Amino acid sequence: METPFLSAHAAAELIASEGARPCMVGMAKAIETDYCRWSAFDKSARLASHSKQGVIELMPISDGEVYAFKYVNGHPLNHRCHLPTVMAFGVLADVHTGAPLFVGELTLTTALRTAATSALVAQHLARPNCKSMAIIGNGAQSEFQALAFEVMLGIDTFYLYDTDPAASKKLAQHLNSCGLTAILCESAKQAVQEVDVITTATAAKTKASVLTPDMLRPGLHINAIGGDCPGKTELHPDVLSQSKVFVEYAPQTRVEGDVQQMPADFPVTEIWSVLSGSMTGRAHETDITVFDSVGFALEDFSALRFMHQLAQKHKRLGRIGLIPELNDPKNLYALITEREFA
Amino acid sequence: METPFLSAHAAAELIASEGARPCMVGMAKAIETDYCRWSAFDKSARLASHSKQGVIELMPISDGEVYAFKYVNGHPLNHRCHLPTVMAFGVLADVHTGAPLFVGELTLTTALRTAATSALVAQHLARPNCKSMAIIGNGAQSEFQALAFEVMLGIDTFYLYDTDPAASKKLAQHLNSCGLTAILCESAKQAVQEVDVITTATAAKTKASVLTPDMLRPGLHINAIGGDCPGKTELHPDVLSQSKVFVEYAPQTRVEGDVQQMPADFPVTEIWSVLSGSMTGRAHETDITVFDSVGFALEDFSALRFMHQLAQKHKRLGRIGLIPELNDPKNLYALITEREFA
Repeated sequence: METPFLSAHAAAELIASEGARPCMVGMAKAIETDYCRWSAFDKSARLASHSKQGVIELMPISDGEVYAFKYVNGHPLNHRCHLPTVMAFGVLADVHTGAPLFVGELTLTTALRTAATSALVAQHLARPNCKSMAIIGNGAQSEFQALAFEVMLGIDTFYLYDTDPAASKKLAQHLNSCGLTAILCESAKQAVQEVDVITTATAAKTKASVLTPDMLRPGLHINAIGGDCPGKTELHPDVLSQSKVFVEYAPQTRVEGDVQQMPADFPVTEIWSVLSGSMTGRAHETDITVFDSVGFALEDFSALRFMHQLAQKHKRLGRIGLIPELNDPKNLYALITEREFA
Repeated sequence: METPFLSAHAAAELIASEGARPCMVGMAKAIETDYCRWSAFDKSARLASHSKQGVIELMPISDGEVYAFKYVNGHPLNHRCHLPTVMAFGVLADVHTGAPLFVGELTLTTALRTAATSALVAQHLARPNCKSMAIIGNGAQSEFQALAFEVMLGIDTFYLYDTDPAASKKLAQHLNSCGLTAILCESAKQAVQEVDVITTATAAKTKASVLTPDMLRPGLHINAIGGDCPGKTELHPDVLSQSKVFVEYAPQTRVEGDVQQMPADFPVTEIWSVLSGSMTGRAHETDITVFDSVGFALEDFSALRFMHQLAQKHKRLGRIGLIPELNDPKNLYALITEREFA
C-alpha cells in the first residue's frame, strides 16, 4: 500500500544516467502521443492562487483511466532567497479507485517537459533547416530549451540575452561545453537580428514587451513561454496580430498567455490539431508563427508517466506511506485503537 | 530543503499517543479559529473529476501566508477491493515563495476533521443537553462521529443503522468498549424515532432519501455529511424545506450538498457566521436544523496545520526529497551535468 515515490535527487540521477538527450526525445514522443488523443482527456484550466510575490497552481487532468495533477509555483524573486523560481511535484492516481499510484518530483521534470513541448511544436511550426535561435531570458529553463532545439531541430547557434549578464554567461559556458555556438548579446533586439527561431523565457511578473513589431522578419517562429499568468506577458500585442498564433488549451491560454492582451475572438489554433495532422501548422515560408505556451496539464500527465516508467525500468522508485493500510476498509478507527493498546 | 512528511502510520501513532479525544477537541478548536477569520481566506469550490466509480477532488485554499491543498477521492465500492472509500493527503506551502512546508497523510486526519466540524457546528445548532444520536451509515466515518459527539456534546446513546449489518455490529462493539450505549436498528426510521440528533453518513453515489419528512420531529438537529457530490444526496427535499439549513461555503454546497435539489435561491446560512457570532444558529427549541456538510478546504487547512504542529511537538516528522537543492537557483540544469560526470 506504500506509494511509489521518485525524489528530486533520484530523478536527476535517472536523467543523467539515461542521458538528457534521449530523455528529451522520449518525453517529447510521450507528449505528442497524448496530444494526439486529445478528446480522451477530461480537461480544465488550472486553478491558480495569486499573491503579490507569485502564483501557486494545481493542474489536474484525467484520461478516464489515469488521473494526474501537478502542484507548481512561479515566484520570480525566489533566487534572492536561494530558491528556484519554479518548483513542482505531481501525482498519478487510479481513476477507478482514487488510489495514488505514483508521487514524483516535477521541478526538473517540468523543465524537461516544457522544452520538449517547445521543440515538438517548433518541428511543426518553424521553417525546415533552422540553424539559429535567440534565447531571451537565460534562467533555469534556458539550458533545457537549447538542448531540446539542438536535439530535435538541429539548431547549433544560440544568441543569448538576459537582464542579468551572469545568467547569460552561465548558459554560454554550458553551450560551449556541449560544442555549440553561443553569442552573448546586449539587447533582445541585437539577439534576434539574424535568427530563425526566438524563444522568450523571462520570469518577471509584468506586462512586458520583450519582442516588439520592429524585431519581426518573415519566416520567424517565436516560442513564447514566459507569458503564462494574468498580468505576465512578453510579446507586444502587434507581434501577435501580425502572426499565426498557436496555443495548448485555448480556455486557459486566453486568460494566462500573451493572447490575454487580445480580444476574446482573436484567432488561435490548438496544437493538438496540428500535432494530430487535422490542421496545418506553418502554411507559407514567410508566415510568422507564435507558440503562446503557458504549460498545460496534459504535458505533466505525459511527463509523470514517462518518469514513472523510466524509474520502474531502472528500479529507482522509493516508497512513502501516504495511505493507511486497513484490515477492514470500513474500520478506519481501528488504526487508532490498535495503537492505543499497543 | 527536504520537505517534512507525516506518514499515515506516524499520524495514527501520533493520535493514539496524544489520545483521540484531545485530538478531536484540539482539531475542532483549530477549525473554529479559522472559520472565525473567514474573510482572510482566498476561497474556491473544489475541483472535481468525476468517473462512473467515484470522484477525485483537489481542494486548495490560502490565507495569504500559508497555502494548503488536499487530494481526496470518494469511491463507494472501494471496500470490494479492500481499499478505503475515502483516501487523502495534503500539502502546506509558503505563499511568499511557493515552497512546500509539509506533506501529510489526510485519510485518518480527514475522518477526524469531518467529525470535529460536525460536532463543532452541532454545539451551535442542536438543543442543549442532547443525549442521543442516530447514526445512519456505519462505515469508516461513524466511529469518529460518535467520538466527537460524545466528547463535545455529551451524547452517550447511539442508534445505529446501515444496509450492511456487519458495519453496524463493528460500530456497536467499538461504542460498547468505550462504555457507550449502542442500539442496533433495522431501519433508518426505527433509528431516528427517539433521538435528539441524526447523523447521516452514507456512501452510495445516488439520489437517496435516507431521511423523509415523516421522520421529522420539532427540535431535531440533522448532521448530514454523506450528500456531498453532484447526484449524491441523503435528504428528501421536503426535509430541507421544513428545516433551517446551514452550510460551509454556499457556492460549493449548492452544487454538491443536499441543497443541490433545491432552487438556487433556497435560503442557507454559512456556518462561519454562526461560529463567529454574527448570525444566530438555532433560534427556537422547536426549530429543525440541518447542517448540509460537504467538507470545505478551510477544514483541511486547519487540520493539516494542527497535525503538522502536533508532529513537530512529538518529533514525528519524516522528510522527503520533493524539491531539488540547487547551488545556483538559476542553474537547474546543473543537477544533470553534476551527475553526468560523477
